Amino acid sequence: MAKEKKLVEEITSMDVDFAQWYTDVVKKAELTDYTSVKGCMVIKPAGYAIWENIQKELDRRFKETGVENVYLPMLIPESLLQKEKDHVEGFAPEVAWVTYGGLEPLQERMCIRPTSETLFCDFYSKEIQSYRDLPKVYNQWCSVMRWEKTTRPFLRSREFLWQEGHTAHATAEEAEARTQQMLNVYADFCEEVLAMPVIRGRKTDKEKFAGAEATYTIEALMHDGKALQSGTSHNFGDGFAKAFGIQYTAKDNTLQYVHQTSWGMTTRLIGAIIMVHGDNSGLVLPPRIAPTQVMVIPIAQHKEGVLDKAYELKSALLDAGFKVKVDDSDKSPGWKFSEQEMKGIPVRIEIGPKDIEANQAVIVRRDTREKIVVALPELAEKVGEVLTTMQSDMLERARKHRDSHTYDATTYEEFVKTINEKPGFVRAMWCGDQACEDKIKEDTTATSRCMPFKQDHIADTCVCCGKPAKALVYWGKAY
Amino acid sequence: MAKEKKLVEEITSMDVDFAQWYTDVVKKAELTDYTSVKGCMVIKPAGYAIWENIQKELDRRFKETGVENVYLPMLIPESLLQKEKDHVEGFAPEVAWVTYGGLEPLQERMCIRPTSETLFCDFYSKEIQSYRDLPKVYNQWCSVMRWEKTTRPFLRSREFLWQEGHTAHATAEEAEARTQQMLNVYADFCEEVLAMPVIRGRKTDKEKFAGAEATYTIEALMHDGKALQSGTSHNFGDGFAKAFGIQYTAKDNTLQYVHQTSWGMTTRLIGAIIMVHGDNSGLVLPPRIAPTQVMVIPIAQHKEGVLDKAYELKSALLDAGFKVKVDDSDKSPGWKFSEQEMKGIPVRIEIGPKDIEANQAVIVRRDTREKIVVALPELAEKVGEVLTTMQSDMLERARKHRDSHTYDATTYEEFVKTINEKPGFVRAMWCGDQACEDKIKEDTTATSRCMPFKQDHIADTCVCCGKPAKALVYWGKAY
Repeated sequence: MAKEKKLVEEITSMDVDFAQWYTDVVKKAELTDYTSVKGCMVIKPAGYAIWENIQKELDRRFKETGVENVYLPMLIPESLLQKEKDHVEGFAPEVAWVTYGGLEPLQERMCIRPTSETLFCDFYSKEIQSYRDLPKVYNQWCSVMRWEKTTRPFLRSREFLWQEGHTAHATAEEAEARTQQMLNVYADFCEEVLAMPVIRGRKTDKEKFAGAEATYTIEALMHDGKALQSGTSHNFGDGFAKAFGIQYTAKDNTLQYVHQTSWGMTTRLIGAIIMVHGDNSGLVLPPRIAPTQVMVIPIAQHKEGVLDKAYELKSALLDAGFKVKVDDSDKSPGWKFSEQEMKGIPVRIEIGPKDIEANQAVIVRRDTREKIVVALPELAEKVGEVLTTMQSDMLERARKHRDSHTYDATTYEEFVKTINEKPGFVRAMWCGDQACEDKIKEDTTATSRCMPFKQDHIADTCVCCGKPAKALVYWGKAY
Repeated sequence: MAKEKKLVEEITSMDVDFAQWYTDVVKKAELTDYTSVKGCMVIKPAGYAIWENIQKELDRRFKETGVENVYLPMLIPESLLQKEKDHVEGFAPEVAWVTYGGLEPLQERMCIRPTSETLFCDFYSKEIQSYRDLPKVYNQWCSVMRWEKTTRPFLRSREFLWQEGHTAHATAEEAEARTQQMLNVYADFCEEVLAMPVIRGRKTDKEKFAGAEATYTIEALMHDGKALQSGTSHNFGDGFAKAFGIQYTAKDNTLQYVHQTSWGMTTRLIGAIIMVHGDNSGLVLPPRIAPTQVMVIPIAQHKEGVLDKAYELKSALLDAGFKVKVDDSDKSPGWKFSEQEMKGIPVRIEIGPKDIEANQAVIVRRDTREKIVVALPELAEKVGEVLTTMQSDMLERARKHRDSHTYDATTYEEFVKTINEKPGFVRAMWCGDQACEDKIKEDTTATSRCMPFKQDHIADTCVCCGKPAKALVYWGKAY
């Protein structure tokens, strides 16, 4: 058994060193690999298949709200990037610049898109003339590049994959409604598919997107008590429209500026899945996002009839609509169990000669390790039940973890002590002044995560300066 | 009617100026738009939806052969690009170079991938140790960049979307089998889904991919008689493996080099669809690739019950599994017909008060303009029949066009005369000497498209030099 345990033993315990645990899981679950390109990663089949499932689910939800997909260039001429002042200040320091095309220096250098507001604005300024051309509700799936100094797989890398939606509307109200609609699409997706509860709220001015009037965010709590911004949706008002001259002729024949939004989710979500659900045996994938939901593991597979029965179960479960594989490699069952657990496959089915004789199999849940002996005729039905239960249990467990790691503070002393000693969110009132955010960050490294849509009034005064409070804020140390 | 015909009148006739016709269709069917980024295009919703369907169909076919998707970085360090001599010579003159990351000059410049052989080799050199790690059959969907001087939407642009498969195998035989297998996947896809017949064959050494031992290709004939290379599959032998040190320990404990392949298809296919099937009214999409298969167009829609009936038909056809829209805009029916034709939607259904009274509708096929009056209870069944027939008719029509524009030549005089005067393929024997390819290109601008798998022996001697013939070659002027 020593050799069989090797896979698991090689992972650092999450209680000893969470960052190292994360790195170990990413590697051992074969999600990514390092490359010769500093700060960039290879996303391996097991990792990319999760991204494909995220894409499929999100894309379907987008299209149900009328989104259409497009593709814009990956390069942005410098003059275009500079058209909106706040935006260029936010992004220019961290872009990669192309200065040569073939053997010739470029007349104007171009950056690899860090995000595509400027390109969409340039596009919309040509496409939109009349109110009949509105709204435009476009999205693209692509990769973007930001020249980060320190990187970690999925969480922060120089290149990452994402979707970026960019919309243009006739009125401010319509833009605001779309901004919130997409945030809710994100939040519902996280909760229903990733089993990851999120706080929906608005960013403070300090934390909002470069060039936005308002940024909405969903914030999730990782197992180590740190926050992860998991998706954002921005309302630009008519700021970009004015900078890029995006105007339309309204029904009353007046010339109006459009109102715009953008919203994005990234491969960072895979990092969130790992850090919300993983354990000391590796990854734990929610059934609805798992590329393989069931691994059938034959016991004593050299014995007559065992492998055949394993294939028969696979085939029956495939027919029932599950994503199933058989591990028929020449490894030992114990080794296969460890691998299946490391890779986070939600359910394994053990089937050996004794099971076959008794016309049964053993279902083992990845999250609780609960073993369920089931008669073969009921296997598919039971697997369905187990996957459904596991999905909702995972959400419930994550919600409990989040709620039990969320604290209220009404004095600054209490606030600092809590945020430094208890991993998690701290809820506290804020006056609306950036100086308090700056002080809190300097004193504790924590940042304002969001002003939740669901506002409670837990005190009358700002936790930091004591002036009258304007909003409840979730504070936390964040990835 | 004058206004209603405007859309169509604005297209140049394909018989007058095919290149202008192509540009007009791309614009009027709203497939792409120009951008501020020279040589790059915006792919608009109508164009991108075709690409999504191509992706879905190809990806499914790939996965059925065991392909797994991954994602590698978009940047290649110069030293990595230079590792394989032929490859760097082929690509270095046409790549875009990143020289700055943020405000800092890079220590080593990196190019935006023109193709990713070098990155996959770097990855495989770490991933592959033992015969147990083989084969690797990976693919990625991404964009690549080649700094072309003259560009045209879909056919040649600086950035384009594609898939690139990269595989590593234990033996030369297995690599060769995979190379041909993927070419056949491509060819079957083109014929079954795009209704586009292709010639399957091998490229001459002059025309093969930089660094490949053998390149296989599928060649299609456009309506104007020019050839379009529509997909390629390369066998690299162990050339890259030796340059990058990709070795594995075989079962007999010896150290061996892997054998590799790569294969790709691009957004160029959308250009092929336009130029194989389009007509003077615009685009004609094969039903199996059309994002919208049926457009329901109400006649006299202001009359009571007409719009309701149109929505009812849409809903019934959606339930039957078709991709359907209703054009309920305030344009005239004639204008709507022109738009539906321009966009290549395979079938339109006209439904007006008289039809409703007679409990019927009119189906109009986009390709033949055949009108079919059908009783409403049989509508879904009939639409299915029409789409199926149209799909196979389109393939047959394209095949007839191709075959009737394919000529044999046995003397050089005949060859030159045919290729200059008759648009299409010319089949002629070749000695195997590149000098003859060079002379033919210089004399006629035609190139060797491929040595077809199906070899006929139409003469004993090379059509150019008169030496003994080695192979039948398809020659043509090409995009």
